[in-house]
Amino acid sequence: MATLLLVLDLTGTFVFALSGATAGTKRRLDLFGVLVLSFAAGNAGGIARDLLIDATPPAAISNWYYLAASLLAGMVTFWRPSIIDRLRNPVLLFDAAGLGLFAVAGTQKALVFDLNPAMAAVLGMLTGIGGGMSRDLLLTEVPTVLRSDIYAVAALAGAVVVVIGSAFGLPATAVTIAGAVLCFGLRLMAIRWGWHLPVARGPAPPDTPVSKEKKDDA
Amino acid sequence: MATLLLVLDLTGTFVFALSGATAGTKRRLDLFGVLVLSFAAGNAGGIARDLLIDATPPAAISNWYYLAASLLAGMVTFWRPSIIDRLRNPVLLFDAAGLGLFAVAGTQKALVFDLNPAMAAVLGMLTGIGGGMSRDLLLTEVPTVLRSDIYAVAALAGAVVVVIGSAFGLPATAVTIAGAVLCFGLRLMAIRWGWHLPVARGPAPPDTPVSKEKKDDA
Amino acid sequence: MATLLLVLDLTGTFVFALSGATAGTKRRLDLFGVLVLSFAAGNAGGIARDLLIDATPPAAISNWYYLAASLLAGMVTFWRPSIIDRLRNPVLLFDAAGLGLFAVAGTQKALVFDLNPAMAAVLGMLTGIGGGMSRDLLLTEVPTVLRSDIYAVAALAGAVVVVIGSAFGLPATAVTIAGAVLCFGLRLMAIRWGWHLPVARGPAPPDTPVSKEKKDDA
Repeated sequence: MATLLLVLDLTGTFVFALSGATAGTKRRLDLFGVLVLSFAAGNAGGIARDLLIDATPPAAISNWYYLAASLLAGMVTFWRPSIIDRLRNPVLLFDAAGLGLFAVAGTQKALVFDLNPAMAAVLGMLTGIGGGMSRDLLLTEVPTVLRSDIYAVAALAGAVVVVIGSAFGLPATAVTIAGAVLCFGLRLMAIRWGWHLPVARGPAPPDTPVSKEKKDDA
Repeated sequence: MATLLLVLDLTGTFVFALSGATAGTKRRLDLFGVLVLSFAAGNAGGIARDLLIDATPPAAISNWYYLAASLLAGMVTFWRPSIIDRLRNPVLLFDAAGLGLFAVAGTQKALVFDLNPAMAAVLGMLTGIGGGMSRDLLLTEVPTVLRSDIYAVAALAGAVVVVIGSAFGLPATAVTIAGAVLCFGLRLMAIRWGWHLPVARGPAPPDTPVSKEKKDDA
Repeated sequence: MATLLLVLDLTGTFVFALSGATAGTKRRLDLFGVLVLSFAAGNAGGIARDLLIDATPPAAISNWYYLAASLLAGMVTFWRPSIIDRLRNPVLLFDAAGLGLFAVAGTQKALVFDLNPAMAAVLGMLTGIGGGMSRDLLLTEVPTVLRSDIYAVAALAGAVVVVIGSAFGLPATAVTIAGAVLCFGLRLMAIRWGWHLPVARGPAPPDTPVSKEKKDDA
């Protein structure tokens, strides 16, 4: 079981690292920059969670597997972008899977470190979305998770399942799987049907509907 | 006394969270993004302080009150922006009060964790200004506290009062109140009379006096 | 030896703080903003390393020398920019020296805290480049280290020398000096001959070759 969890965790890291590396090559970073983005996107969520619950040094720092998975993803993206292009749809799928996995694993770890249920769910969600947020911030973009469709909410839903299951003493494995599957399913449905959260009304100038590129003109 | 401090602390969190939520709605984030901005603005200063002095898990993570206060502020701002508009002046007042409170409380906590006086004052100031900095960075804006009027200096002045009072063994309650009142008063006077710090001279191109807002047009 | 190391460490902090203060005055921050940039550029790398290896509170927080060195650099830059202008070439030299020193000292500290060799080298590199990254992020610029010439790689090379030397049980002083000199030399050669890493090819739109640099010209 521990081995299975590690494999799944590293798969999630690898997939998120692909998203970081892809964003880095699009912005024309050099090789080193692409690898930094890979590592940040794959690991920043888990590192933030571990710092906040005092599980130091964070797993991604005490163990070199995470670095290796991130560098592999970065180098493939850098030297073989054609592979990544062909895999675009699988990557979206893996990203949804990684999100679900990180959310439930992060929640479990926070509960093990005695956080109260509400904050454990928040930290589970943070584990899932932190990598993408740091990827965007390093490229000085407003994190897409703050403005786009159902992403964080899917992670939160998966985390809440784990928290509720744990409160009722249900078997951890079943609860973890249920949470991950719920997050994964919600995310896929959000992609499929373009679900998104309401956006603040407020007095935005009429010529800049949501166009982020123009964001500082307002 | 502990209850009073918690109430004041949560009030400060609520007020700072209002500023985060307001900034988020202005930039057209979705509901989740607005709530993240609320939490970050209300709690990032305290979280950074707690991580740096090794008071982990940070109060804002181990305790759900801070999350609740932040979400409440975010939801009011999102669904009832008219209330916030009407409260603009009170919010500036509360913000000054929150700044004073966070600065002295942060300094006290750093002293309890045995930091030397100079760094305790710095961390008190960080507690006060960290939320606003993270709010601005998440929206990819240069933190206003780095370029605007007397804000950080007011927080620092309040923190220094606490440090000096503690060094002379004066009663903690009196010193805390004096520091908070000094910060609050300085901040109000800075707003009232437009006080600000000197800006670096240096060879800035003559057509861009302070024109940061234009930076993303390129 | 400990005194020598502290002097070198503070020299590195001072030099990096100069780079932060210079960047802050160029962007027209006020005095406080310039001092924050000085502290961040001089200390963020070491603080990040200390948080990640759980050496809390970080040296730059528990000890006021680092704050003093940073503030001194910031105030000189703010009030006597002409001195800094005249020292431009020495500063590049000092920056390379600071990079080498931070990289080897950071690696040594990570090894002392029982990190595995690969991650110790990564943290050594982070110690060297973290200050510059946080300086750029506070000014909402993509960190130059992610897109420019041989900088992080020089730090990594110095860190790797320390890790290998430590694995073979070579004398720490000799290994430390060798690593710092290698990093310093690589960095100077990269400046001299314009060495840089490959940049991702990928389908960049032809009208924006690398033109992100223009965003802050406004």
